[in-house]
Amino acid sequence: MTWGDRGVQADRGVQDQADRGAQDLGNRRAHDLAAGLSELGCRALLVVAQSASDPDLAPFLGARAHLGAALLVAPREGRPRLAYLNPMEREEAAATGLLLVTPEELETLRAAREAPEPAAYLAWVMSRALAASGVAPGRVALAGLAPAGEIHSACAALARQGWEWVAGNELVRLVRKRKTAPELAAIRAAAGAAVDVMRALAARLAAARGIPGGHAGSAGGELWLDGRPLTVGRLRGEAARLLADRGVDQPHGNILAPGGEGGVPHSAGSDGRPLRAGEPLIVDLFPRGAWRERPLMFADCTRTLCAGEPPPAVARAHAAVLRALAAARSLAVPGARGWDLQEAVCLTFEEAGYATPLRQPGTTTGYVHNLGHGIGYELHELPIFRKVAGAEGVLAEGDVFTLEPGLYDPAAGWGVRLEDLCYLGPDGLEVLTPLPYDLDPRRWTLDP
Amino acid sequence: MTWGDRGVQADRGVQDQADRGAQDLGNRRAHDLAAGLSELGCRALLVVAQSASDPDLAPFLGARAHLGAALLVAPREGRPRLAYLNPMEREEAAATGLLLVTPEELETLRAAREAPEPAAYLAWVMSRALAASGVAPGRVALAGLAPAGEIHSACAALARQGWEWVAGNELVRLVRKRKTAPELAAIRAAAGAAVDVMRALAARLAAARGIPGGHAGSAGGELWLDGRPLTVGRLRGEAARLLADRGVDQPHGNILAPGGEGGVPHSAGSDGRPLRAGEPLIVDLFPRGAWRERPLMFADCTRTLCAGEPPPAVARAHAAVLRALAAARSLAVPGARGWDLQEAVCLTFEEAGYATPLRQPGTTTGYVHNLGHGIGYELHELPIFRKVAGAEGVLAEGDVFTLEPGLYDPAAGWGVRLEDLCYLGPDGLEVLTPLPYDLDPRRWTLDP
Repeated sequence: MTWGDRGVQADRGVQDQADRGAQDLGNRRAHDLAAGLSELGCRALLVVAQSASDPDLAPFLGARAHLGAALLVAPREGRPRLAYLNPMEREEAAATGLLLVTPEELETLRAAREAPEPAAYLAWVMSRALAASGVAPGRVALAGLAPAGEIHSACAALARQGWEWVAGNELVRLVRKRKTAPELAAIRAAAGAAVDVMRALAARLAAARGIPGGHAGSAGGELWLDGRPLTVGRLRGEAARLLADRGVDQPHGNILAPGGEGGVPHSAGSDGRPLRAGEPLIVDLFPRGAWRERPLMFADCTRTLCAGEPPPAVARAHAAVLRALAAARSLAVPGARGWDLQEAVCLTFEEAGYATPLRQPGTTTGYVHNLGHGIGYELHELPIFRKVAGAEGVLAEGDVFTLEPGLYDPAAGWGVRLEDLCYLGPDGLEVLTPLPYDLDPRRWTLDP
Repeated sequence: MTWGDRGVQADRGVQDQADRGAQDLGNRRAHDLAAGLSELGCRALLVVAQSASDPDLAPFLGARAHLGAALLVAPREGRPRLAYLNPMEREEAAATGLLLVTPEELETLRAAREAPEPAAYLAWVMSRALAASGVAPGRVALAGLAPAGEIHSACAALARQGWEWVAGNELVRLVRKRKTAPELAAIRAAAGAAVDVMRALAARLAAARGIPGGHAGSAGGELWLDGRPLTVGRLRGEAARLLADRGVDQPHGNILAPGGEGGVPHSAGSDGRPLRAGEPLIVDLFPRGAWRERPLMFADCTRTLCAGEPPPAVARAHAAVLRALAAARSLAVPGARGWDLQEAVCLTFEEAGYATPLRQPGTTTGYVHNLGHGIGYELHELPIFRKVAGAEGVLAEGDVFTLEPGLYDPAAGWGVRLEDLCYLGPDGLEVLTPLPYDLDPRRWTLDP
């Protein structure tokens, strides 16, 4: 079985990269997918996608695709086929190198007349894509992201024609857990941009000056830079511009959470909020490679910065988080369970006197979340660090994941998090986001 | 029934905007939703979303939300509730102003232990979110974007407990077809950025110089600017930087398609491709407001530019497309069907001797697509311009949509498309992307 056969001329550099990726896919992923389908008792995988960036479709597409709604049929034996719905996308579909099912074969014009209602149209193209790929009614694994009500109605209608549907999203997540060479290259590129921009933001903070006694009741004076207050929104704007300069975008935004906003890990931070001396700022960047690299992959890294003297509790938490991160990195080897690392980090924190979810599930003070997450086509994918039994929770060579311990005290108004993006390669763990860990951004400029 | 009750302090400007939006929603959308649910015989709407940017969830959220997976339950009578899954998102959830169902009420920790498999976990939180919102088992409309296999399995499992699922995505599309004041403001902001950047790209093309006899077999010489060849990739990079400067991103990329690549409407264009004098370039920008404006809304506009003398066929097509666009605009009034406009444009083109899908369905030469599409939380939403019977194909006051006739000759190697983003307001049709239409970018600089 070969995937992504390259029958079509395309941009040369992209083509070379895609060839290597296709080979990777052909060698390992096709095997993993076939084995997974056997285990589920399915004759094929059907991916229903809204666009080429669907995380279950993108791994099949190779270098380049600008596609709207599309389906992919991967029979347990034989090559996968891409069914596209819009005749205007014929060149983009051809550039994927996949075998194609055309809109004409799907009879989309007839479907628009005879089954215009969205769920009926979806059922129509699903059954025709399967038939055109040589898959007869039977048990099929279903993946992709789809309109919830419409996909359920379509599946229920097709069940009356002999189709039986099995949840296949997790299978595709497992198949794409270990990264191919072009996927890793794209993650490296996005990570490089995040590293550059994190350094630039630290330099801005290092250059800012506190206005003594700025704001009543604040930890310290407001930070000013170039004659203007340095706000969360201003720093967020600079981050967006600098990331765009490097060809990456931020489909899920970012986190720039000062003081108490950083005390709740997923708070994005308020743009109008001024930054203050002596107050920690959590900077969590999770951009996605945009127009320069294909495939489109996420990167993710976090630092906590504090211009001016940090409160003792923050300095102490920062040191504890740094130790926890080092402990987690040392345990991240192939075959380790994510949960083992999470437990080790919890014990590290408990020894230092912080609450953790190990003994206090649901705690909102101390260490309050999981250690990390896989990353790739999605910001959060496999491996996971929860207590689970299966392969989704076991680290393997080729995995890319974050390690991001943190400590939080929302009542006292602070949070500290440090996050490395890691690749578990043939030579061990590699940190893809090499950056200083210092709280004080002025120390960053001393670091080469 | 009131939606988006604002019980929580937030950024003041954002709050004001959200209040107006909530009022709009309260006045009209809640009524439309309740009527739609009645028609479907449903006691509630359930939206299952992967993030706050889910197009079926976002309209309920008001000004700001940084949320991962979440559910929304809108009973036919009573206020909607947001069920969030991650305790770390409590501040972000609270900032939506919606009634909340907490992770504790959903028993997510217990679910992770007792129903760790993704479809079982999903079924768990769906049934608990409904119960916590006072909805007893029965007929429910389902919307949102979800993992296809998992949502189907979850629905099938819940059906055995008395739940009956009806496709609800189209209902939400209809409810959000007419834009609220904050939605329109956000579209205007994104459209303003697209207009600025289109002008900047035209200025770059106007400043470029053709190198005579540049490339063998080309239409004309390659274009150079500042001592370097002007390629698709270079222009695409400038577009990304300039858009980011304005706080918008491009989750679906863009189209910069020269010559033959522009002959197929959805071809994105190859970055390595040099631009040439006398060759039309389709520039189609469809950015989304990013970090400055909430809600996140798309804009969309297209121009066709040609530095140097255009081939006569291209100049003729451009004039015909411009006439078709004017005809479409003049017919775009409340109550008109999108299909009526499409037919009128087809007739305009047929009179000028071009093939259209009206007489030649599936043609790939001439006018080969529909006239436009609604736009908002998604790049493509309602109204639609296909031949359909329902309200989804009828223009109404408050709609925002594109009008984008084009002509294509892939064999001859060219395409021409002009696209206006339009708002059907109380005072008639307003073009949100006011730009020159000239093929020649040097004429753009003469235009104020």
